[in-house]
Amino acid sequence: MNAPRARLGVISMFYARPFLGEHFARFGDVRRADLDFIELLVPEPGELDLAATRRALADAGLGVVLAARVNPTRDLASADPRAREAGERYLRYCVDIAMALGAEIVGGPLYGAPLVFAGRAPAPVAESERARRIDCVVGGLRAASAYAGDTGVRFAVEPLNRFETDMANTTRHGIDLVARVDHAACGLLLDTFHMNMEDSDLPAAIRAAGAHVIHFQANENHRGFVGTGHVDWRGVGRALAAIGYAGPITLEPFRRDDERLGVPLAQWRPPNRDEGPDLAASVRILREAFGEARGA
Amino acid sequence: MNAPRARLGVISMFYARPFLGEHFARFGDVRRADLDFIELLVPEPGELDLAATRRALADAGLGVVLAARVNPTRDLASADPRAREAGERYLRYCVDIAMALGAEIVGGPLYGAPLVFAGRAPAPVAESERARRIDCVVGGLRAASAYAGDTGVRFAVEPLNRFETDMANTTRHGIDLVARVDHAACGLLLDTFHMNMEDSDLPAAIRAAGAHVIHFQANENHRGFVGTGHVDWRGVGRALAAIGYAGPITLEPFRRDDERLGVPLAQWRPPNRDEGPDLAASVRILREAFGEARGA
Repeated sequence: MNAPRARLGVISMFYARPFLGEHFARFGDVRRADLDFIELLVPEPGELDLAATRRALADAGLGVVLAARVNPTRDLASADPRAREAGERYLRYCVDIAMALGAEIVGGPLYGAPLVFAGRAPAPVAESERARRIDCVVGGLRAASAYAGDTGVRFAVEPLNRFETDMANTTRHGIDLVARVDHAACGLLLDTFHMNMEDSDLPAAIRAAGAHVIHFQANENHRGFVGTGHVDWRGVGRALAAIGYAGPITLEPFRRDDERLGVPLAQWRPPNRDEGPDLAASVRILREAFGEARGA
Repeated sequence: MNAPRARLGVISMFYARPFLGEHFARFGDVRRADLDFIELLVPEPGELDLAATRRALADAGLGVVLAARVNPTRDLASADPRAREAGERYLRYCVDIAMALGAEIVGGPLYGAPLVFAGRAPAPVAESERARRIDCVVGGLRAASAYAGDTGVRFAVEPLNRFETDMANTTRHGIDLVARVDHAACGLLLDTFHMNMEDSDLPAAIRAAGAHVIHFQANENHRGFVGTGHVDWRGVGRALAAIGYAGPITLEPFRRDDERLGVPLAQWRPPNRDEGPDLAASVRILREAFGEARGA
């Protein structure tokens, strides 16, 4: 029996940030890397011509997934009611954009509470504040999920490592959060980069998350190309097969080929060479690891 | 042939922070966990009675290693000359404290440039600024190493993950830095927690670092107890044996047994139960992994 083909894609930041109309020619590169979709950052108002984007995607034969961008001014977990309201408004906006582009998944750290990338240092969280944050986040995600309703758009909540948020770090945190939201339009996004830091056993975590998982990001431990680090891709593939996962799987190889002392690794940088062959090699490694796992 | 016994220790933060005279009773717990030394944060002036600390260590039969604490006000990489001078003064102070306590290693991110724990967000670093930072750090470490001279105290420079610094993230960065300093009193500290995020292959990185390594920290990927995560301890042990490593190996299991949603993982918290048996189990796992690797 043939294994079903894994639905693989790449994040737009692999090519450019911001990703604009002038970058639509990259959609052909995505296809040539044997990928099925692109994951776009949710465009800010006016950043992309939505109709033109949808046509360019269709012309290239590509699907699309959306990555939401939270920040301290739109943050479901914020103590500031204006930031919380802006966070809820933003999630509704994401649904509207998803419908306009034909996307079915809006993923990311939708709960807010950004840490290092917002210049916020780790600090103790009082028990009352922890409870308030959870209430606000669960309420906000429930309201946004109700707005998504039966449009077919779903929210995929992503746990991030301890340095990027203090809201949801482990897969267990993610499961707990989406179980509390308890809405068909709200599931889980797992990213092996973050899991490698926070989970004890990646395949076991995937199995525990089970049917909650509606989006997946396949990243190496150091965020370089798949196959150049130490993530156990066969184990990950077997776990995804075991839970019957058939959703999108995005590659986000952000780390550039510049290993000089003092070059920041947490700072996004544009490509410094043609990385197409490396991307294609990563895709082959994943298809082989996942295909073998599914076909067994 | 019997393998030499690995020299293992635990960081004082495992018990308390700050670690004060009232905590000296913990030295007995350290011995009972089959450990050989404690790694103390370099005490701030007046924080510890140095003579009393040295006596308590001797009474317990424990060695001591020091962990330096840099911050934006004492930072070899700073653009502010006062912060740089304070950084150099601090490293001389560390040598004085080491001699007073009988420690031979002062380890840590001695180059400065703290990121998430200083509330500094990742940002691009211009090429001229990168070069300036390297010059300042190399000059500062060279001056501090000259001050250490033939006292027997050595500086162990530790690469940290991308979110904790933008100066030295990978083992390769660390090798490059200590090679530029080029002084017998300046070597490398490798920590598997950071390596798990930034290096492609931990055993290969250890082998590449070779004789530069003068201190080592054995931490799980999620900073819980050794043996509860996915670090390949046998591979690490074989690599340490291959480079003939005979220096100290510190455990720093900071992660507390509280997996509730919204409990920050990057925030230090005191123990919430008696963790002695877990520490002893970690030590057994390491001794077995390292002993087998060395005895082979």
